[in-house]
Amino acid sequence: MNVACLGYGVVGQGVVELLKKDDRFKVIWILVKDLKECDLPEATTDVQQILKDNEVDMVIEMMGGIEFPYFCISESLKRGKHVVTSNKAVLQAHYRELIELAEKNHVSLGMEASVCGGIPWITTLLNQNQTGEIDRVEGIFNGTTNYILDRMHAEHLDFDEILKDAQRLGYAESDPSDDIDGKDSLRKLMISSSIAFKTVTDMDSFTSESLRKIKKYDIEAFERKGLRCRYIASAQKEGDCYTGSVEPTLFKSTDVQATIKLNNNLALLNHSALGTLQLIGQGAGRYPTANAVVQDVVQIYGHRDMMPQMNQVLSAQPSMQNCRLYVRASNDAMNEILPWIEEKEGLSGWTKSITQQEKKELIARMMNLDSDFFYAIIK
Amino acid sequence: MNVACLGYGVVGQGVVELLKKDDRFKVIWILVKDLKECDLPEATTDVQQILKDNEVDMVIEMMGGIEFPYFCISESLKRGKHVVTSNKAVLQAHYRELIELAEKNHVSLGMEASVCGGIPWITTLLNQNQTGEIDRVEGIFNGTTNYILDRMHAEHLDFDEILKDAQRLGYAESDPSDDIDGKDSLRKLMISSSIAFKTVTDMDSFTSESLRKIKKYDIEAFERKGLRCRYIASAQKEGDCYTGSVEPTLFKSTDVQATIKLNNNLALLNHSALGTLQLIGQGAGRYPTANAVVQDVVQIYGHRDMMPQMNQVLSAQPSMQNCRLYVRASNDAMNEILPWIEEKEGLSGWTKSITQQEKKELIARMMNLDSDFFYAIIK
Repeated sequence: MNVACLGYGVVGQGVVELLKKDDRFKVIWILVKDLKECDLPEATTDVQQILKDNEVDMVIEMMGGIEFPYFCISESLKRGKHVVTSNKAVLQAHYRELIELAEKNHVSLGMEASVCGGIPWITTLLNQNQTGEIDRVEGIFNGTTNYILDRMHAEHLDFDEILKDAQRLGYAESDPSDDIDGKDSLRKLMISSSIAFKTVTDMDSFTSESLRKIKKYDIEAFERKGLRCRYIASAQKEGDCYTGSVEPTLFKSTDVQATIKLNNNLALLNHSALGTLQLIGQGAGRYPTANAVVQDVVQIYGHRDMMPQMNQVLSAQPSMQNCRLYVRASNDAMNEILPWIEEKEGLSGWTKSITQQEKKELIARMMNLDSDFFYAIIK
Repeated sequence: MNVACLGYGVVGQGVVELLKKDDRFKVIWILVKDLKECDLPEATTDVQQILKDNEVDMVIEMMGGIEFPYFCISESLKRGKHVVTSNKAVLQAHYRELIELAEKNHVSLGMEASVCGGIPWITTLLNQNQTGEIDRVEGIFNGTTNYILDRMHAEHLDFDEILKDAQRLGYAESDPSDDIDGKDSLRKLMISSSIAFKTVTDMDSFTSESLRKIKKYDIEAFERKGLRCRYIASAQKEGDCYTGSVEPTLFKSTDVQATIKLNNNLALLNHSALGTLQLIGQGAGRYPTANAVVQDVVQIYGHRDMMPQMNQVLSAQPSMQNCRLYVRASNDAMNEILPWIEEKEGLSGWTKSITQQEKKELIARMMNLDSDFFYAIIK
């Protein structure tokens, strides 16, 4: 099988390395921005050369960005080439079109590497969808924020200090906004919940809260209660509706979520026959992500791949579940929400069980008075 | 696809129920010992009727035992019928022959349900074997013993009390020997390590220690050190050798293993590209196990199944890794091993780091003086 790789960054290099060990596959093109990036004879800067080459059976897109990858993926599918992508942004933005395009052209679109690189999460969702209904997906889908939270708990340092360290060590991007403000998790939740619920979920309907404002002060308040904070993406289906959220969430230290170390990921599903299944592994990194790409390549080669279904019509709905919150805010802001507070300690407090409508109102009031305000929900 | 189910116990009933919801499959026979067991028209007590029926495309064996299931599976394979089995005992006893028989007759042998019912463990091993090397498998493969350990830690009760409760609640068999003495875990470790290492491992080469002798006294000693006990099956490959063991093992309370609740299972692999991947889910029960069976059925139907490879020649070898032990024994026995003890507290002690040869000698000396002696290893 002749393969073209688009992109030769960390993941691209890993994929080329793994594929070269496997004599079922031959990498015949590597698309780069500049020939200086790659001294292999397969390198080219001309995507048209790849798209027009009838020898190419499969295109692996590992570039990042949205519009150019979208062009490359859709053109490849239209020309009857299988596509594997690790790019969650393009999948989130063009989910339905790309799957329909693959189906129309009788080729496959592999997306295992787009969510939780080192965890065979997409394959598990697709397989389990064959034998029952999945009504919940949840996880620690972002390694950068878990790295920060795990070290904040271990070392009692402030967010910014550890973020800087994570950037220095390559665990965080120089612009970490997508990770720490939740966009990366939201995209992965959109893809996971769409596959799990056999529909196309709307990312804009999900609730989300940035992790950026968490302080050492908060971590210490959690620990006094024996709790640990994790940045959790979660989506539920109930009847014809679904809800989703990405929020700082508190767990008992004896819960699995609390034990997820450094930049590892967790992915959880709840299934009508299986009950709860949890997978833990590396979420990113050269070889784990490259391995996920090559898993797709091998499955497509062996005709063992499956495509997500989109035959369920579900509507987005705000969550109806009551919850308890940890909140930390200035005294003025705190005074505004005192009726909901069950326990107050310095600048922070723990609410009683409140409705989602009350939660929304509480957050709105707080934001109005203290933009530095932070909350976490209690599981 | 026409399916025959052999056995109509807890798992058999679950499988028939799940298959009846799926119009790709038709259950045309159900083998029972006595027609009183099942009032469905598909019931029969005559296995020959099933074996000779050319309409049967697939046989699902869910009976338990070894010799009769072996006869049914091998005859079905010889007659060109696919087989799916949840029976770890028959797989362990006849692993190579059954796989070779399936290959020779160009049919499939599915075994997902034989290890960790609710966890897609076998599929994960087979998939990950396609893209790299697995050099370690480890897990909590037995739900009964985890149920007992988890409750001993939570409630500080003695082994026998909880075992009785587990039997009453259906979490333990009336004769629990295979579970609590390790045979069930050893069989699952043999199957898991054989698939992972692409060989046929020898169960008799694995070290094992019964969990039967653990006491409330031991649990309290572990907890004073912040440790929790789990009953761990583990196998490693190094070069051309492998080692395996099933032993009570101690973990920090912040380790994932320590958080595995009640009768849940954990399965872990270490992979050349992925690193460590851990899966947590229900290990047994009607629907989780039935779902695993139906996963195999659906994969075989879609030609997406894979068979284990056996092309690696590896030799069994005792472990070479040093370890530390917790030991509890009578004073006489303890006095015999004092040179190895680093810390003594009442009837129990913690050894310094010792070699495997020293461990073997220590256990032999202790057993000689106190058959009630118990040890656990420290991870």
